[in-house]
Amino acid sequence: MARSSRSRRTTIVAKPAASTSPNAICLPKPRRRPRGIKTRGAILQKAVNLASLEGLEALTIGKLATSLKISKSGLFAHFGSKEDLQCAVVQEAGRIFVDAVIRPAFEAHGLERLRALCRNWLGYAEEKVFPGGCFFAAASLEFDDRPGPVRDLIADSIKRWLGTLEQAVRDGQNAGEIRKDVVAQDLVFEIQSLAMGANWASRLFRDEKAFRRIRQAILERIEQVTEPPRR
Amino acid sequence: MARSSRSRRTTIVAKPAASTSPNAICLPKPRRRPRGIKTRGAILQKAVNLASLEGLEALTIGKLATSLKISKSGLFAHFGSKEDLQCAVVQEAGRIFVDAVIRPAFEAHGLERLRALCRNWLGYAEEKVFPGGCFFAAASLEFDDRPGPVRDLIADSIKRWLGTLEQAVRDGQNAGEIRKDVVAQDLVFEIQSLAMGANWASRLFRDEKAFRRIRQAILERIEQVTEPPRR
Repeated sequence: MARSSRSRRTTIVAKPAASTSPNAICLPKPRRRPRGIKTRGAILQKAVNLASLEGLEALTIGKLATSLKISKSGLFAHFGSKEDLQCAVVQEAGRIFVDAVIRPAFEAHGLERLRALCRNWLGYAEEKVFPGGCFFAAASLEFDDRPGPVRDLIADSIKRWLGTLEQAVRDGQNAGEIRKDVVAQDLVFEIQSLAMGANWASRLFRDEKAFRRIRQAILERIEQVTEPPRR
Repeated sequence: MARSSRSRRTTIVAKPAASTSPNAICLPKPRRRPRGIKTRGAILQKAVNLASLEGLEALTIGKLATSLKISKSGLFAHFGSKEDLQCAVVQEAGRIFVDAVIRPAFEAHGLERLRALCRNWLGYAEEKVFPGGCFFAAASLEFDDRPGPVRDLIADSIKRWLGTLEQAVRDGQNAGEIRKDVVAQDLVFEIQSLAMGANWASRLFRDEKAFRRIRQAILERIEQVTEPPRR
């Protein structure tokens, strides 16, 4: 329902052309396309920051329009419904996460990639790449009991992240750097849990040491499974 | 402000008597006191369950009154404001937590108490003593950025819990059961983080194995610090 509403409303700015690919759009004036695209990026950046601070569920088209000082109808041109907006925000947050955490770690492999992923990730949370702390930690906690496409998108994003960590563990095992008896899924689950705890404590107790303490715990946990084992 | 409002309104049911202790109350009819107390307990039980499922912030006097099929004014007699109600709910949840998790573990000491606290705690979360999962995990995440007495009460409750775990670690160290070089606060922080992660995963991924996996990780972590060390 939300999607059909969106398709109808986007014709205000961009009308899909039958003869082009699904991603191509036919616009009345050539100047409007780049401007529209730029505006969508700026809107999403504001929306991600707002959602990070106040929660994804509190993000409405009305509130975002007020915050951006633009009309609600202007926003409806980009996002046909609150749910579409929330999904777009999750995707934008995913893009930011990949740029800050995953991409830089892909220069390394196996065990070293695992360490880099964890270091980048804790750095990203501590340095508040999102003003309200880790976007996915907050969004997953907020939507865990709200079935629907937003929750599915959040859960899928996090599963992909856990899959990236697990693959690094398996690559490390294949390269003889990580013990073969370690279950990649279990190790990653422990690492993820430790980081979730750091995020939680830093917010509840305003505990500045939380990330440093958990970084230490995570890196020690990784050292425990390296080959040859170090204690 | 909420508290003065509460004091004013509770005189509908119970009027404090100047000649008695602060906890004693002077009632117009002897029959009303036990009935009133029972009602407050029943109301709080319902309120804790509602807050556990829908969140503490979503718990309003109006919603609770509708759910209990009683008048809002009847509820105002017990709780003068939404904030007073929320504080009472946190205290009631604390009482339930102590009964389910802490009290049974106090039969043991030191290392064995630490193990019992962790086992009871994971059991309580897994068995859904609160229908929505761990009340304090949810409430702390919900209120971490909402300054005020409710947040303070939640944070204090969790600090007391962490203090209970830390004391068990120190007692275990004094009894020669836990390594002296372990920093109690760090170990407890890791344990708490692992459990927060299990709670998170069990809700987001509907992962039935989350608590079992984290129980294993927590108990192994405890084994690593026992004296003599076991691997």
